[in-house]
Amino acid sequence: MTAKLLLAAALLAAPALAQEAEKPAAPSPNEIVAAAPASEWVAIAPDDLLVMDLAPDRDGKARRVVIQFMPPPFSHPWVANIRTLAKAHWWDGLAIGRAQDNYVVQWGDPDAEDAAKAKTLPKGLQVTSENRYVAKIEEDVLRYSKFRDSYAQFSIMRDGWPVAVEWPSSHSMAYDAWPVHCYGSVGVGRNMPPDAGTGAELYTVIGHAPRHLDRNIAVVGRVIEGIEHLSTLPRGTGPLGFYETPEERVPIAAIRLGSEVADLPAFQYLSTDGEAFARYADARANRRDPFFIVPAGGADVCNIPVPVRRAPIE
Amino acid sequence: MTAKLLLAAALLAAPALAQEAEKPAAPSPNEIVAAAPASEWVAIAPDDLLVMDLAPDRDGKARRVVIQFMPPPFSHPWVANIRTLAKAHWWDGLAIGRAQDNYVVQWGDPDAEDAAKAKTLPKGLQVTSENRYVAKIEEDVLRYSKFRDSYAQFSIMRDGWPVAVEWPSSHSMAYDAWPVHCYGSVGVGRNMPPDAGTGAELYTVIGHAPRHLDRNIAVVGRVIEGIEHLSTLPRGTGPLGFYETPEERVPIAAIRLGSEVADLPAFQYLSTDGEAFARYADARANRRDPFFIVPAGGADVCNIPVPVRRAPIE
Repeated sequence: MTAKLLLAAALLAAPALAQEAEKPAAPSPNEIVAAAPASEWVAIAPDDLLVMDLAPDRDGKARRVVIQFMPPPFSHPWVANIRTLAKAHWWDGLAIGRAQDNYVVQWGDPDAEDAAKAKTLPKGLQVTSENRYVAKIEEDVLRYSKFRDSYAQFSIMRDGWPVAVEWPSSHSMAYDAWPVHCYGSVGVGRNMPPDAGTGAELYTVIGHAPRHLDRNIAVVGRVIEGIEHLSTLPRGTGPLGFYETPEERVPIAAIRLGSEVADLPAFQYLSTDGEAFARYADARANRRDPFFIVPAGGADVCNIPVPVRRAPIE
Repeated sequence: MTAKLLLAAALLAAPALAQEAEKPAAPSPNEIVAAAPASEWVAIAPDDLLVMDLAPDRDGKARRVVIQFMPPPFSHPWVANIRTLAKAHWWDGLAIGRAQDNYVVQWGDPDAEDAAKAKTLPKGLQVTSENRYVAKIEEDVLRYSKFRDSYAQFSIMRDGWPVAVEWPSSHSMAYDAWPVHCYGSVGVGRNMPPDAGTGAELYTVIGHAPRHLDRNIAVVGRVIEGIEHLSTLPRGTGPLGFYETPEERVPIAAIRLGSEVADLPAFQYLSTDGEAFARYADARANRRDPFFIVPAGGADVCNIPVPVRRAPIE
């Protein structure tokens, strides 16, 4: 039995579809996104981007990773600290020190634990506290797209971001809400509680969403382009995937705010309040496009990645 | 502010713990697994393993991936077909043709779609049908560890495997049950329905669990060792992450059943019916070890990977 061209298979399937000639094939989630009107895409300000340029790979190719910051009310003052560090060019010359399969890639100052060698942090870093991992929101969360969740009462898509929600008590007028760790989320490394990290040590998720980290670590953003430069890195052989030798670490050439990067493309995300996103999320949860047989009837919020794209050239 | 050695931070935390001198620090999930008694580890028969040796990497290092087969009643006759293909050494000289970030790495015959070049399949392959994606099980599923799930009524750990469950109707005496796609799951590539694939084209998950594929594709096993050889592969630049040139494909030297591999280590999985697994799963869902502040109160089944290890040398 030889496998057929995907196109040929689609044509072979066509006679069955012809019987329902009135009903076109259901669009895939990506097709819905591709057809979304321009008005439903939201511009991301360059100042809300963090751009990491790694040393070129062993074939000399450039490696740029672009990160979008989490907006208020979440994860401040860590985002503020990261802006301070980026403006100070603090990460230049530091490195990626850890790559753990199905977990995280982490970067910062590999000598942070050595008082003699640790790189001096810039002035002006704000104090952080674990009390800030969870925010209070008072709006009617039920107006947002809502998803069944194994880790919270439910999760929502709020202003372009996956957020978990809990109604803390019958007397409270506000929801507890916190950012969700998904593939590509960027979080703040820290030591044991009550240390909450400054933002100098960062990581991104390269495996199944580690939701047990929610409410235990600050999520400050997500990778929107170039995550493959991190997810394909050789895994560290030390404990927790740390590289055992300095030679294995991946040098960071520079980390800058997007507003300080010449010729940075413009990026947009698909508004999670719009009609196209609602149809996209429904299609992610209920795949009716021709490849599928059984729509799941639901999805976890991390299986509905918020579409982000380079803004089309006008 | 310099970051402290993790050990030093743990010592700094010790004074707080000393106030509760009667209560030792809660163990981490990995600590629970490491302390599990030998009797709770189940031997995996070599005949239930599929061993894939890729061409050495560009530094000449060997790359072996070990896969454990899904047991009955799931995913037969695909597992039977894979045994037939492995015994025929059919994959030798074929290749990995696709690596899509946050999704899958896929391998098989890159020329499968070209009738002139496609490699002849061995005789004896069983007919497959999409009706077999879901099995019926009649035992009392409520005796298994049970997990809240965004894609099914609930999921369970059954005989060492994550399985989603639905009670089909009030008249039925059996549950619908199907294997769950998690990171490292191995599934069977196919064309458009009703094609269900033979098992000649396989993939493994290298990102967030694509649960929308459940009940739509046969899950035949999981990678138990060596997944980093797949998850670190350069991503394909063609549609769906297919490599655009033959030179990018990763050659497969050989795929064999474990029973045909000389000097293969013995492997074991932690019984999901035992006390250690129950404590491990509880710890995964409720992190109380010192790094954590807020136990989640739940977990999705893919965030509780079944521990698998090389059998200790007696």
